[in-house]
Amino acid sequence: MYNFRTDLALERTNIYRKANKLEEIDGIETEDEEVDENISVSRVKVTNENGERAIGKKKGVYVTIDLKKFKFADDDQIQKASDILSKELKEILESHIAKKDDILVVGLGNIYVTPDSLGPKVINEIDVTRHIIKYLPQYIDENSRPVTAISPGVLGTTGIETLEILKGIVDNIKPKLIIVIDALASRSIDRISSTIQIADTGIIPGAGIGNTRKEISQNTLGVPVIALGIPTVVESAVLVNDCLDLLIEKLQNEAKSNVFLNQLKEKDNYEGIKDVLNPQDYNMIVTPKEIDELIENMKDVVARGINMSL
Amino acid sequence: MYNFRTDLALERTNIYRKANKLEEIDGIETEDEEVDENISVSRVKVTNENGERAIGKKKGVYVTIDLKKFKFADDDQIQKASDILSKELKEILESHIAKKDDILVVGLGNIYVTPDSLGPKVINEIDVTRHIIKYLPQYIDENSRPVTAISPGVLGTTGIETLEILKGIVDNIKPKLIIVIDALASRSIDRISSTIQIADTGIIPGAGIGNTRKEISQNTLGVPVIALGIPTVVESAVLVNDCLDLLIEKLQNEAKSNVFLNQLKEKDNYEGIKDVLNPQDYNMIVTPKEIDELIENMKDVVARGINMSL
Amino acid sequence: MYNFRTDLALERTNIYRKANKLEEIDGIETEDEEVDENISVSRVKVTNENGERAIGKKKGVYVTIDLKKFKFADDDQIQKASDILSKELKEILESHIAKKDDILVVGLGNIYVTPDSLGPKVINEIDVTRHIIKYLPQYIDENSRPVTAISPGVLGTTGIETLEILKGIVDNIKPKLIIVIDALASRSIDRISSTIQIADTGIIPGAGIGNTRKEISQNTLGVPVIALGIPTVVESAVLVNDCLDLLIEKLQNEAKSNVFLNQLKEKDNYEGIKDVLNPQDYNMIVTPKEIDELIENMKDVVARGINMSL
Amino acid sequence: MYNFRTDLALERTNIYRKANKLEEIDGIETEDEEVDENISVSRVKVTNENGERAIGKKKGVYVTIDLKKFKFADDDQIQKASDILSKELKEILESHIAKKDDILVVGLGNIYVTPDSLGPKVINEIDVTRHIIKYLPQYIDENSRPVTAISPGVLGTTGIETLEILKGIVDNIKPKLIIVIDALASRSIDRISSTIQIADTGIIPGAGIGNTRKEISQNTLGVPVIALGIPTVVESAVLVNDCLDLLIEKLQNEAKSNVFLNQLKEKDNYEGIKDVLNPQDYNMIVTPKEIDELIENMKDVVARGINMSL
Repeated sequence: MYNFRTDLALERTNIYRKANKLEEIDGIETEDEEVDENISVSRVKVTNENGERAIGKKKGVYVTIDLKKFKFADDDQIQKASDILSKELKEILESHIAKKDDILVVGLGNIYVTPDSLGPKVINEIDVTRHIIKYLPQYIDENSRPVTAISPGVLGTTGIETLEILKGIVDNIKPKLIIVIDALASRSIDRISSTIQIADTGIIPGAGIGNTRKEISQNTLGVPVIALGIPTVVESAVLVNDCLDLLIEKLQNEAKSNVFLNQLKEKDNYEGIKDVLNPQDYNMIVTPKEIDELIENMKDVVARGINMSL
Repeated sequence: MYNFRTDLALERTNIYRKANKLEEIDGIETEDEEVDENISVSRVKVTNENGERAIGKKKGVYVTIDLKKFKFADDDQIQKASDILSKELKEILESHIAKKDDILVVGLGNIYVTPDSLGPKVINEIDVTRHIIKYLPQYIDENSRPVTAISPGVLGTTGIETLEILKGIVDNIKPKLIIVIDALASRSIDRISSTIQIADTGIIPGAGIGNTRKEISQNTLGVPVIALGIPTVVESAVLVNDCLDLLIEKLQNEAKSNVFLNQLKEKDNYEGIKDVLNPQDYNMIVTPKEIDELIENMKDVVARGINMSL
Repeated sequence: MYNFRTDLALERTNIYRKANKLEEIDGIETEDEEVDENISVSRVKVTNENGERAIGKKKGVYVTIDLKKFKFADDDQIQKASDILSKELKEILESHIAKKDDILVVGLGNIYVTPDSLGPKVINEIDVTRHIIKYLPQYIDENSRPVTAISPGVLGTTGIETLEILKGIVDNIKPKLIIVIDALASRSIDRISSTIQIADTGIIPGAGIGNTRKEISQNTLGVPVIALGIPTVVESAVLVNDCLDLLIEKLQNEAKSNVFLNQLKEKDNYEGIKDVLNPQDYNMIVTPKEIDELIENMKDVVARGINMSL
Repeated sequence: MYNFRTDLALERTNIYRKANKLEEIDGIETEDEEVDENISVSRVKVTNENGERAIGKKKGVYVTIDLKKFKFADDDQIQKASDILSKELKEILESHIAKKDDILVVGLGNIYVTPDSLGPKVINEIDVTRHIIKYLPQYIDENSRPVTAISPGVLGTTGIETLEILKGIVDNIKPKLIIVIDALASRSIDRISSTIQIADTGIIPGAGIGNTRKEISQNTLGVPVIALGIPTVVESAVLVNDCLDLLIEKLQNEAKSNVFLNQLKEKDNYEGIKDVLNPQDYNMIVTPKEIDELIENMKDVVARGINMSL
């Protein structure tokens, strides 16, 4: 299997196609739709084991919603994007459970680390109803679906596998379906916090990574798990790797190595690289994931240093 | 002049030396000191116009304090780093003003953008005294120096040049010296929020950048301006550019272009690149500077989308 | 003059009327308007010195916009309230300056203290234009008004009187009018962050308080100052004082002192008081203003205490 | 049983004693200790059913640590308070479990509501070890105790009883003891975020309140539950009620009702009340618990209103 370094089925399909110079992949069906100039929806369907092997994703449906110019989004665009997401999600829900079946929404991630905080932030806004249906039924429409929501935290701050926490909760409250919100890695900078992947296969960490995070899926929890994944990071190594690939390709194609290399070295490649990296007016920076903590520490140093010197 | 893409005099000196294969640069004196295993201090002194031209920095002293393993810093290390900063700062202050002269501390940057929030956060912790000396002198040691502090905000959110705001304040409160805290760009990822540059030359934005930010210095404000600069970002283009340079150099040195290029393309460079980019156990990511805003927008989409679908 | 303990002209007028059992006050004209079931607008006009003396507010117009059930406000209600505010503000602006005259918006308060953070938060959202008109005129409608915005901080963290900071800025950028956003004290808990007072008289701290905050008004800054004040606190002493007044009145009216007092003491007044204090489904609490700081300190104690004991 | 309106055993004991004019209460032993001028420790031991009935607290030990002038605490005082807490906690732990037994730390409360955010904030700082012992035993001392930590959220945002969440987790990770951090109500404003109550009885919501929060204790979870409770709120109704009681008492004692009432009404009680309410240089305010949400809504109104009017 390729080391795709992206969790998006759509990006993986495109990488696989390009690498193998294929138009079609056996076991993978795709479909694209332009909703309007700023929203597009793609569907990748993995239909057999060949498709699974090709892109390293389980059999199932992967819907990708891309939101363009999303950082300038006003309330109308946010509402429109919500409508599309709601429509896609509803379809998947209806194919798995009945109208009044219990749903548990799970927001993975760490509220204290900005690029990892999306899951917990979403949970805070979910309209939960189970406790109202249970304790104050007179205040709620009798056809309401019981909804619960939880942010279980991350292994590094709880010391507990997320799966262990969820298992216990599922045993106790017995939802019929779980929606998991998770941060993904993407290969494309303009997908950061601008793309949503909906998958009906749960969350299955890649085989090659060697960590111990356990699969969160119907296999492990006993009920269907719908994953909403949003890319929030691109690794800097991915970025550099992609640039090297481009350069090597260029060198080979043009077959003019030595003189060309000298020229390349003479001229400043920075502006060209910058153009490549900033396709959509983002001002890209490389930061350590611990930037918030580092800034707090440094704030203490500088404030104390100044105070003591005055 | 080189396009150094770093605001640190120390990095610029090293780049210039390496590019010109020089041991010494006329007009630049340097000096290094290891304080302990985690703290080192370097001094770059630009002494004449040749030095100014070489590294694009005004005549003056640039002290760089490097803090290693700073993300794991405990309170003792933070205190030690503060002591060093205080010592260096005191020396500079004493060479410019008298013991009871007024000082204004200015924190540049935007409190709402994490990597740009250091200046305003420091200002919040400065022990200001001028108002106590003025209105409640009985509550303060009569030898106290009047200290004031302000975060003037950034042009994009105020619509006003920082220099214009500071001019007005300086005219009204007439400090004898200004300390400015600013976020810098660095070329080295492990300097992010782990290095402090103290310069007695104020803040002089690079000529080549073409923006209209005006110099904040004795020239424009009439009193000495000490700049405390802390690197908080590295551009991803810088990173990729550096990697390309390394590759080209390697290709030339080894003079085995075509076969080698094929090999390079076959094998996966990712792990090697990752090693190069993660020299000090940072988990590096590439994020748009607007990450916080993008996350807020996306949170709304996902929460609304889920709520509407349930 | 009464010690009204409210900054709202409307509440002062009502207190004065009730205390003096007056229907009309010479020098004060009032007018009420119900915009819809959730928004009402009142206008208090102070027309002569008698009115000034009566309610301790300068000659001028004080418009109060009351937003009911505002904690449950959805986006539509927020937009509707914004429309009303915009309409009232526009009228006042048009009576003072021309269409393209410069405006400076000032957000008073401390971003780090929740109940005092409204001003700085608003400033962060103001669409500033002056720098675009100045540096990038091609990107903006040529009829745009130059708008600037600043959060000058508070005396306790800057050491500088707000007026001194504003004077300097006004001298440099020469706006034709200033809009100041400020937190007010109110007597009524259900007005907290649910009422806006617009006054064309600037901000004039009460004579009786004895602090040194200087007036921010046309007198001191030379251009008209429109104040937008939002109540964010009620003092607990005000609350208790009001309750005592009610009790004393009741005791006198009913003229049945001793037996009644015994009864009062026997029965639990708590539920009755709670009803009085929670008129609009708020869950009221009494907190020290420094609650955020206290919580940070306590967090350190508890986390360290637990960590050391494990 | 009294409606004490405080969760502190110490305050309840004092209220009961005063109300019944008792020196000693059968079934309750107390002990006070001044650690230094800023820290005192009190122990209340409920030893039989009479004691339980008297103060409405289960048989067990309740240790109260009071921190004076805590809002001005520097790092040394915070460390000292942590030491005391650690010492008290260690004693209780050693009486219940062995050195290497698993502990689960639970932080109750809502991270998004300032006065309710202490529990989740503490959890973020706990040194969890279970996952390191399990997955990376080579990196940790082999005598380390497995520690886990979780913030389960609140019923209003999860829709799930905290007890149900904890049950599931306890079933899966089988800790030998649980430490629960919770916000309490107190009667005394100067105890807000300045007092810690340690109880070996778990958390048992008062019978009279009629809510459905279920007991978190050895009874329901099968392992000992140590509760660390920190007062973060005082209800305004409690405050007013206390003041009325004082007034009524005064009126009765002095037996001079009518003339006195008139005098009372004439003079301004505000300053006296303010003195009573501000015993320890706190600047007390009354806020709705939803203050943060109200401020966000109001920020939108004011920013939009201004933007549209300019």
